[in-house]
Amino acid sequence: MATEHIFNVEMTCEGCSGAVERVLNRLKGQGVNQVSISLPEQKVTVTSTLSADQLLEVIKKTGKKTTYVGPQP
Amino acid sequence: MATEHIFNVEMTCEGCSGAVERVLNRLKGQGVNQVSISLPEQKVTVTSTLSADQLLEVIKKTGKKTTYVGPQP
Repeated sequence: MATEHIFNVEMTCEGCSGAVERVLNRLKGQGVNQVSISLPEQKVTVTSTLSADQLLEVIKKTGKKTTYVGPQP
Repeated sequence: MATEHIFNVEMTCEGCSGAVERVLNRLKGQGVNQVSISLPEQKVTVTSTLSADQLLEVIKKTGKKTTYVGPQP
């Protein structure tokens, strides 16, 4: 079952949010179903069968400061 | 022997260049000796015993578009 996970990611421009989006989109078909990013809210929403920890590892590889907020309530 | 490798990396703000710097600095003591980034020149210089291909893989994980320019002439 896919869960909608929410992460807080420090992104300051569209280059930043584009990079995060690109990295997560590379995992489409490999556990990631959908990616949605809000630059003004510093919020990344990922619908995925991967665990929050696995997704956090991927986002951290971008070099952005990130924390897991929780599943979509 | 460490070589000074030059990469072109698409970075649009200091958040972008900071992310690339952070990712490469994590490899200090693991093959990376020195990292120098010029945001206006879109240039990343890495002094490293790792190969250009290995460094390219690391930089690509940031989600930034990047190409290898060559060793420091």
